[in-house]
Formats: sequence, C-alpha cells, structure tokens
Amino acid sequence: MDRPSFSAVELAERFGLVVCGDADIRVANVSTLVSAGESDLAFLANPRYRSQLASSSAGIVVMRAEDADAYGGTALIADDPYAAFARLAALFAPRAEIVPGIHPSAAIESSAQVHADAQVGAFVSIGDRTVVGAGAVIGAGCVIGEDCSIGEDSELGANVTLVTRVRLGKRVLIHAGAVLGADGFGLAMEGGRWLKVPQLGGVTVGDDCEIGANTTIDRGALDDTVLEDDVRLDNQIQIGHNVHIGAHTAMAGCSAVAGSARIGRYCLIGGGAGVLGHLELCDRVVVTAMSLVTHSIRDPGEYSSGTPLMDNRSWRKSAARFKQLDTLARRLPADKESE
Amino acid sequence: MDRPSFSAVELAERFGLVVCGDADIRVANVSTLVSAGESDLAFLANPRYRSQLASSSAGIVVMRAEDADAYGGTALIADDPYAAFARLAALFAPRAEIVPGIHPSAAIESSAQVHADAQVGAFVSIGDRTVVGAGAVIGAGCVIGEDCSIGEDSELGANVTLVTRVRLGKRVLIHAGAVLGADGFGLAMEGGRWLKVPQLGGVTVGDDCEIGANTTIDRGALDDTVLEDDVRLDNQIQIGHNVHIGAHTAMAGCSAVAGSARIGRYCLIGGGAGVLGHLELCDRVVVTAMSLVTHSIRDPGEYSSGTPLMDNRSWRKSAARFKQLDTLARRLPADKESE
Amino acid sequence: MDRPSFSAVELAERFGLVVCGDADIRVANVSTLVSAGESDLAFLANPRYRSQLASSSAGIVVMRAEDADAYGGTALIADDPYAAFARLAALFAPRAEIVPGIHPSAAIESSAQVHADAQVGAFVSIGDRTVVGAGAVIGAGCVIGEDCSIGEDSELGANVTLVTRVRLGKRVLIHAGAVLGADGFGLAMEGGRWLKVPQLGGVTVGDDCEIGANTTIDRGALDDTVLEDDVRLDNQIQIGHNVHIGAHTAMAGCSAVAGSARIGRYCLIGGGAGVLGHLELCDRVVVTAMSLVTHSIRDPGEYSSGTPLMDNRSWRKSAARFKQLDTLARRLPADKESE
Repeated sequence: MDRPSFSAVELAERFGLVVCGDADIRVANVSTLVSAGESDLAFLANPRYRSQLASSSAGIVVMRAEDADAYGGTALIADDPYAAFARLAALFAPRAEIVPGIHPSAAIESSAQVHADAQVGAFVSIGDRTVVGAGAVIGAGCVIGEDCSIGEDSELGANVTLVTRVRLGKRVLIHAGAVLGADGFGLAMEGGRWLKVPQLGGVTVGDDCEIGANTTIDRGALDDTVLEDDVRLDNQIQIGHNVHIGAHTAMAGCSAVAGSARIGRYCLIGGGAGVLGHLELCDRVVVTAMSLVTHSIRDPGEYSSGTPLMDNRSWRKSAARFKQLDTLARRLPADKESE
Repeated sequence: MDRPSFSAVELAERFGLVVCGDADIRVANVSTLVSAGESDLAFLANPRYRSQLASSSAGIVVMRAEDADAYGGTALIADDPYAAFARLAALFAPRAEIVPGIHPSAAIESSAQVHADAQVGAFVSIGDRTVVGAGAVIGAGCVIGEDCSIGEDSELGANVTLVTRVRLGKRVLIHAGAVLGADGFGLAMEGGRWLKVPQLGGVTVGDDCEIGANTTIDRGALDDTVLEDDVRLDNQIQIGHNVHIGAHTAMAGCSAVAGSARIGRYCLIGGGAGVLGHLELCDRVVVTAMSLVTHSIRDPGEYSSGTPLMDNRSWRKSAARFKQLDTLARRLPADKESE
Repeated sequence: MDRPSFSAVELAERFGLVVCGDADIRVANVSTLVSAGESDLAFLANPRYRSQLASSSAGIVVMRAEDADAYGGTALIADDPYAAFARLAALFAPRAEIVPGIHPSAAIESSAQVHADAQVGAFVSIGDRTVVGAGAVIGAGCVIGEDCSIGEDSELGANVTLVTRVRLGKRVLIHAGAVLGADGFGLAMEGGRWLKVPQLGGVTVGDDCEIGANTTIDRGALDDTVLEDDVRLDNQIQIGHNVHIGAHTAMAGCSAVAGSARIGRYCLIGGGAGVLGHLELCDRVVVTAMSLVTHSIRDPGEYSSGTPLMDNRSWRKSAARFKQLDTLARRLPADKESE
C-alpha cells in the first residue's frame, strides 16, 4: 500500500517526544519489535519484551528513557511508550473513509431521521422515531429498533442490534454482534410459574464509549441502564438491567455485572469477573480476572477471589482439604483458638 | 405519551389487592421509588430499598403489609409485591402491536408455511419445510433454517438464528442474537487429528420459555436438546448438545451447561455458573454464581464453590496457603489426626 | 426419510471393524442406546452408559471388545467406538447439498471475487478485495468485510461477521453469530481518558478449524491473531488480539484467552477456563473447567484452580476459614513450622 512516510524528527515534533539517534530516518508503517523492518516504527512498553530490542530491525522504536541508554538504533523517548505509540500508530492506520448515504437495500421507517452525512450499510433496518446523527456509520445487517438515537460520529459494526430506547452519545464505537436494549431478566414466581416483569426502561451510553463484539447490555426495568462517558467494554460482556457504570471504567472480555449494580469511575474489571446485583463499587476499584464480587466495595484498591493454578494432582489434595477447612481449623490447639 | 390512568381502587379490584390510603388517587405510569412522581405507581419488594420509601413522591406504592404501617401515602398491599408489580406494570407497558404480514424483502422457501397472522420482518430468511404459527413475530435479520417450527405467539428478536430442526412451543420469547440449533461440539481424536462427530438431532423448546440475547443452544448429536416448559435463560448462556432442562428452571447470565447434562425442574443456576457434562441435577437445586458443578446432585438445596472476595494483598496470602493445604493439615498434632 | 441401509458386514468392511453376531442385519439410521430400534445403529463408548446396553433395541451397537463379551446382539468391535461411530454416522447424516451461485439479494463489491462453485446466501455482504474459494458456503446474513479470504470448502453459518483482514484456510467451519476480526481491546490511559490503540493486524485461521456459535476472535494489533490447522473452538469463546493457538488444540464453551497469549499444540482448554495475556502454554496442556491460568506452563499435564462444589452451608464455613488461612497456618506449632 502506498502510505506516507515520516522522519523521526517529524514524529518527535508532532507528538512532543525526544529523538535519540538518527533524526532523519523515515518510517512508513508500524510493526512489532520482532517483525519490524527498517521502514517500520515499533515500540517497547512491556518489560517482558525488552530482550527483543537488541535484535529488532525496526527503523525507529518508541521506548522509555531508561531503555534507550543501551540501544544503538533510533529511539523516540516517551514517558508512556504505549500511549505514545497509540497516537503514532493512528498516523499509519488506514481509516475507512465514510461514504455518506443509505444503501438502497436498507429498510428505514418513515418517521426515522438519518442525517445526510451518515452512512447506512446494506440490509439495515431502522425503526420508528430513531435518529442517526451526522458522521455516524451503521454497518451492514444492523437492526435498530424504535426510539433510539445514535450520536454524531458513532459507529456500529455489522449485525449489531439496538432493540429499543437505546441512546448513544457521540463517537461511540460498537463492535459486530453486540445487542443493546434487550429485555432485562426480570421474573417473579407466582403459583409455580414464572411471571415476566415488563422492562420499560432504555439504555443510555455516554460519549466515547466502546462496546465489544457480541457484548450484551440489557435495557432497564423502569429507569435506564447507564454507561457514563468513556466506558470501555471488551467482547462477550453481559451488563444487566439498571446497571450504572461510571466514566472511564474498563471491563475485560467475558466479565458480567448483574442487575442494578453500580460500578464507579476509573474501575478496571478483569476478564471473566462477575459483580452480583444491587452492589456498589466505589471509584478506582480493580477486580482481578475471574473474581466474583459478592459485597459492595467502599475502598479503592485491588480485589480478588479464587485459588492459584496448580498441577491437577496437587490441586486435588488442596481441594480435598478445602472441604475440611473448618474441621481442621478447630483442631488447632485450643489455647490458641482464643488469640 | 397518552396513556390510560387507573385509580388505586380500580387496581386493587383488578388484581385482588388491598388499598391503604386514598383509594381515588390515579396513576398513569410506573416508576422506581426514587424517580416516581405523583402520577406514578412504584413498588417496594427488596428490603434494601426500604429507606427510599419515606422520601418517594410516588402516587401509589405496592408493598407488603408490614411496610405499610409506617407509610403515610397510598399503598396497595400484596403478599408478593414484586409479582403484583409485574402484573400491574403490564397494564402500563406499551406493547408493540403485531402487524401481520411478510416484509417484501424476506426470502422464504416455497415449502415453508407462514401463518397469515404471523409477522415477518425485513431481511428474514426461512428455510424449507419450516412452519411459523399464528401470532408469531420474526424480527428483522433472523435466519431460520430447514425443518424448524415456531409455535403460536412466539417472538424472535432481531438477528436470531435457528439453524436446523429447532422446534419452539407457544409463547416462546427469544432475544436478539441468540443461536439455537448449531452443531454440538462433538469430536473424536483419530490418528492425531480431530474427527467431527455428525450432529443429527435437533432442539425442542417448550411453551413459555424465554431465551436471552446472544445465548446459544446446540442441537443434539442424536436425540434432541430439550428445554421443558417455562424455562428462563438470561443472556450469553451456553447450552451444550443433548442437555435436558426441566420446567420452570431459571439460569442467570453467562452460565453454561455441558453436553448431555440433565437439570431438574425449578432449579436456579447463578450467573457464570457451570455444569459439567453427563451430570444430573435433581429438582430445586440452587447453584450460586460462578460455582462449578462437578458431580451429580441428588438432594435439593443450595450449592457453591469458589472463595470469598478479599483485598488482593490478603488474598495472595490465603492463596499461597491454599497451595500448602495438604502439607499444613498433616502438620496438625498427630493424636488428633485420627478423630 | 428414504435413507439407504447397510448390513453389519458392509459396515465392518468399509471401516475395518469386526462383526460379532448377525452379519446380515441391516440398519438405516443412527440413534442412542436408549432410543434405538432394530433398524438403528448405536454405540457404547462412555462406561457411564454401559447399563443401557442390555435393554437396548438397537440393531447394531459399536463397542469395545470387552463390552461385547456379555452382549447378545450384533456388535461392531472398535478400539475407539466413539471415533468409529463418528465415521459411521457420517454415512447416515443428511448432508446439505451445495447449490452454487449467489443469492440475488446479496451485496457484493465489484472488486470481490466469488468462485463460481461457491454458494452465497440471502442478505450477504462481501467487501472489497475479498476472495471466496470453490465449494465455500456463506450463510444468510453474513457480513464479510474488506481484504478477507475464505478457503475452498469452508462454510460460514448464518449471521457470521468477518470484519476485516480475516483469512480462512480450507474446510474451515464457522457457526452462526461468530465474529472474527473485530478490533482488539487496546487502550492506553492518557490524561485521565482512554486512548484507543489502532488495531492494524488481521486474523489467520488454518485448515480444518471449527469455530463455535457466537465465538469472537479479535484481529491483531500489529501482527495477526493466529489459529493453526485443526483448532476446534466451541461456542461463546473469546480470543484476544495476537493470540496464537497451536494445531489440534480444542477449547470448550465460554473459555477465553487474553491478548498475546500463546497456546501450544494438542492442548485441551476446559469450559469457562481463562488464560491471562502474554502467557505461554506448551504442547499437550490440559486446563480443567473454569480454571484460570495465571502463569506460563512449560510442562505438559493437567492444571486446575478453584474449589470443589459443596452444599452452601458447609461451603460458607470453608470460605470463612479460607480468609483466615495465613493466620491459621501461623498458629501451627512453631517447632514444626521449619519442617
């Protein structure tokens, strides 16, 4: 592909970085330390990969000052090489150009409003009273129900479903297969049968949120399910009805939050972790992967549950003892029990 | 919205409840205790929210008798306020009207039979010999394969896939993105390569079942995978081939049941919980969230695995000791070991 | 259905098996031991079901030699009855015939190349420069983006999305709702806001891979996410960006691998299990269901985490003691602590 190239000094000036080495060397692409050639820009952020630096053929490497001392090639020095690389890489990323207009196959209700600068793909359905803003992109096969709104410059990947009453802010990015606004799981047992509780709320998603592939966010029972600005959800996540997630919180793949829980701002929820319903997590809580949050958390910090990985034979011994733990503890010398 | 309103006495008579307070007060909508205004009906079921009652502006609140004693407003008394609210809320829920007919874009095989009173959305495919009953609603983008049947008044959200040989009872509700009838995961290792085991069964779903968004239910290898009547599945659930789930069982989000397991009636499977293959769970088993069922269960009751949530520093200490548990247990005084 | 029938001796000769009993008995279908009639072929592989043999009405049963001694009916003897049954069942499986051609509703970019012997279903979108090979089947509602390739005889179920730069080998089978090639979850925190890291790589899938319904495989940040040949993924699995999975590895439903992890060949990852990012697992590692892999594994074998299932009352006691484990361990007699 015919991509523009940039010199080290140009990149340094544009992004406020310092050059060490040949300021005139030019790069036209980004790559990993291992795969990069002399016309590629690479980065070193995770110390795990430091050993790859010496043998890398990258033209320029973004790194911390302390890693540059021992490096003979051209470096761009950044306090946070990963963040710097994120900005640099965007220069080289082939961004799909928006082609405003509605694909002739799309089925759009007459009361829906699609901005002339939005792009609507093939086989898209848009329901009554739904509004699509300027610069929005709706991927092929999306189904958008009634009373939704899609803010400016938001983008929906293919086969996304917004069921009903889903309001997206600006620059929201939703990946393929996600479902927002399906009924919450509200059931009451009556006379030996389940009775469905009507789900009358919606989903509100703030600006700059990202929602992963095949993730599901149910609409509220009465009030809305809410994601504040800049919430980042990975793939395969489940968000129950009336959950509220604070700004700048990120959740990794396969995690889940049950109904009516409130997650604070700047939280990090690990992959496969779960939060039970009706709990509250304060700001800046970190939950490690596959942990289950069973009570509200009032202090910022890192929380965990589970047991460490072991070879199965050893694990079986520990697991058998886990079942006996209370009995074993009671067998400790009695005079110490009262300590 | 121009909704009908109801007086407290009208609601009490219609649903067999008792009024405390102003029997003539009218409500036109439902809401939460916190958000409700004087023309709204709210409810108090979870004691967690009892403190919200005093400051609520709701016109009418559904609650238990014991909560009404201290309440100055108008109350509707119910033994089970949540179930009562479920019925009341349905009065106010704007129900989408069915518009019988087939969207002109739909692709329907000539041997398929769609009842004249069914509604088929845009970009729907329906395969050979599939039957769609009266009052059924098929959302936009659904793909229904061969030899399926969709019972009366069943509803499929958008982008649902029924792969093949999927038979749904009456009043089944399937949310967007669910996939029923994909191949079960059947593999045999032969000569160092995987050999695919043909999946020749189907999926049978009883009346009044609900299946969540992006949930997957594989078809059986030989016999069918079966959900009896009134089974309720939340989002992102995985049901393996030849699983059998008893009537009135409910499973929360992200839970999973491996192949050929049998779950009884009136079971409750918590979020993220797993059941290994070929096990049997009797009726009325409760599995708490993120527990793993590794053996059959013959007694009703509640079952759990996992460890409690702890701050990460404390958890690391316990986790390190878990690995030593058998050694530690052997260090207990020898004379007590035989107890 | 009018299916062909086969005699025991015909089946034995075709698949290299030994007949015990009536070599002329004919079967026309496959079934389970419990459901089979006299014109059905069944199998006994799992000893769990041995008790079903005596009362089975199956015409022929595939089994191991040691099970045949006590069996009065007709048996086909196999060292691995499950693998033998897999091959036998394929004889009876009604295989959907490929109908080459492109459904008139499909939206295919002019620079895409679809082989004349491929089958493309209704409402399929295919993007620029994508190539579809001979004998490939693309199910209804699939959305295939730019720069993808689909190898010969590969099959995509309904509503599958290949986002961009996804290259599939030959005979790859992808079930409904799967999403390959969505953005990896790459974020850098800068000035209190998340910065998206561009995801410039693709996804490479080897020959003979199978990918389950609603499974997601993200594309790489720079290099590709890679599945080698004959990798088998069940439903609802999440594979992060730049993950590399070795040939013949199988993963059960709801498992997940975080970014940049490398899984070896012939590994078995249990249902709901997780592997953290940047780890390496050698060949022939078995991870049991719902275990979390938190460190690299260099030795083949079986690994586990978690605790056994208990009745909730007993579990609560053990769980409470788990929190005290370090304190309890320190209370062990001091003279033994040094052992």
